[in-house]
Amino acid sequence: MIETPYLLFLGDAPDPLAAKVARGIRDWRPDYALGQLRMEGCKADMHVPDMTLAEARQAGAKTLVIGVANRGGVISAAWKRELLAALEGGFDIASGLHNLLCDEPDLVAAAQANGRRLHDVRVPSVTYPIANGERRRGKRCLSVGTDCSVGKMYTALCMERSMEARGMSATFRATGQTGILITGGGVPLDAVVADFMAGSIEWLTPDNDPDHWDLIEGQGSLFHPSYSGVTMALIHGGQPDALILSHEPTRTHMRGLPGRALPTLEAVRDLSLDLARMVNPDCVVAGVSINTQNLPEDQALGYCAEVEARLGLPTVDPFRHGAERLAEALAKL
Amino acid sequence: MIETPYLLFLGDAPDPLAAKVARGIRDWRPDYALGQLRMEGCKADMHVPDMTLAEARQAGAKTLVIGVANRGGVISAAWKRELLAALEGGFDIASGLHNLLCDEPDLVAAAQANGRRLHDVRVPSVTYPIANGERRRGKRCLSVGTDCSVGKMYTALCMERSMEARGMSATFRATGQTGILITGGGVPLDAVVADFMAGSIEWLTPDNDPDHWDLIEGQGSLFHPSYSGVTMALIHGGQPDALILSHEPTRTHMRGLPGRALPTLEAVRDLSLDLARMVNPDCVVAGVSINTQNLPEDQALGYCAEVEARLGLPTVDPFRHGAERLAEALAKL
Repeated sequence: MIETPYLLFLGDAPDPLAAKVARGIRDWRPDYALGQLRMEGCKADMHVPDMTLAEARQAGAKTLVIGVANRGGVISAAWKRELLAALEGGFDIASGLHNLLCDEPDLVAAAQANGRRLHDVRVPSVTYPIANGERRRGKRCLSVGTDCSVGKMYTALCMERSMEARGMSATFRATGQTGILITGGGVPLDAVVADFMAGSIEWLTPDNDPDHWDLIEGQGSLFHPSYSGVTMALIHGGQPDALILSHEPTRTHMRGLPGRALPTLEAVRDLSLDLARMVNPDCVVAGVSINTQNLPEDQALGYCAEVEARLGLPTVDPFRHGAERLAEALAKL
Repeated sequence: MIETPYLLFLGDAPDPLAAKVARGIRDWRPDYALGQLRMEGCKADMHVPDMTLAEARQAGAKTLVIGVANRGGVISAAWKRELLAALEGGFDIASGLHNLLCDEPDLVAAAQANGRRLHDVRVPSVTYPIANGERRRGKRCLSVGTDCSVGKMYTALCMERSMEARGMSATFRATGQTGILITGGGVPLDAVVADFMAGSIEWLTPDNDPDHWDLIEGQGSLFHPSYSGVTMALIHGGQPDALILSHEPTRTHMRGLPGRALPTLEAVRDLSLDLARMVNPDCVVAGVSINTQNLPEDQALGYCAEVEARLGLPTVDPFRHGAERLAEALAKL
């Protein structure tokens, strides 16, 4: 686990979009986002206090989180100076960058010298078990999509917030780099070795109170040939009691695969349910989450209403219109 | 690729069963099995010439293949002396042992000093691509099973032999450690990182002649919750034109999961075909392979006849009774 709270490192972000991870933390774990550290020329702003390393330590920050993508996959000399100063100042560092902190000898040496930790969340740090398929106590919900990057993480995070607001017991379980940096823990599933994928999800969602819900971040799609095995492992390791279908209605082809059409929501529903019932015969599809970010308001509402009528399931854009109806659907189970 | 032919290292095998890998090579690639190296107390015999290291080099052997499981997961001092002598004598070494050659500093040093290679086939040595799902030329057949370890590798190897005997063009494609050591190459799929599983199978079975068949070694089972994601990646990365269903009729529960019943052959047929047709709409189920090793001859034949009548597909134990009918089924496609 990554120690919280965080100081968000925005570096010299060339534009606000580059600071996607920082924005996720600020949006979803505002308690963790104690402050931000911006270098000269930084074009992003999380609207949290600007702090020096010393000020952030004083305020209780434990980890400097790299909240921004670096340019060209290289940790620049300017970044390096800040990161070394952070380690010397008592911070751990957490990163989801493609180029790893632990591949930088000077950072490794400084971390060792100062007794600090470097968290490369793209690299699994746990020896996961082989899945055993045994039923666990507590309940689990998994978002499954028609494609990659259709809003499965946001769906689960929105549902966690709505469920907590209703007084339900719920925990978002991150399975990707951004989710891990948002919450401070999870499984970087796309980097787990094949034999241990399902076991890593069993590890992530252990026995819990009977009325507790794990909200498992979905990955990939059963219909995406590049990543379908990852989705399969999530379903069989996650043992879901409830599935939420996720879809982005303006997508013209599967992500990264021009010419390959998206499946229908009905096809995702039927296949996911068949597979989930192998490990949890009581699994149901509880609702549909539509990512309407590319639709104007009237079309967004119209699309959701159309899907709701067609599938007979509560259908919302949880980020745009709230996840209350999805939370309610789980509460009724 | 591992250089052939081999000298089979049987070490001090405590019993014939311990030399499973050596037996696989001897049975399936007799041309590679130039000779065997047995230490004092060895209880296994491949019935190939006993050779010293020097004799085997003289005869043209390139790689010493560890064809036996070691005791307690430790490479003993007695083994170590032989392995060091092999490296000094000009051999590469290949191993599927859990404890890796490359974790033994003295072997690594000796390999470097002598310009030799250590092949730990449990560790992927290739940077695999992300799968792109594009159709490839040539044909592919994949064995899918009701469970793990029901005979999928033997099925594919038997079919390769029968197809070659018919003059068909066919290549067994190994996806596990034993298969890799038998053939000298392949993908150790269970050790591949999640995001690259399907891509590794695309890499393994590239464009080929229109009438060439890749016979892809199956792994796991769609119905085995520990490994189903691996099987899914094989189906979507393999893009099969034909599936062979594999089953062991005396198995009382899924391997390693007491209490979990095996699926029916019909269920495996239907789910596998649905998934395969996502990437290859022309895929068909071509036949059934029954592993009858635990049945007497009359029951073995009776069971195959019963399945054949039920499923309407050629059904054989390809190892016991030959794979001709499965080869014929592919030839007809």
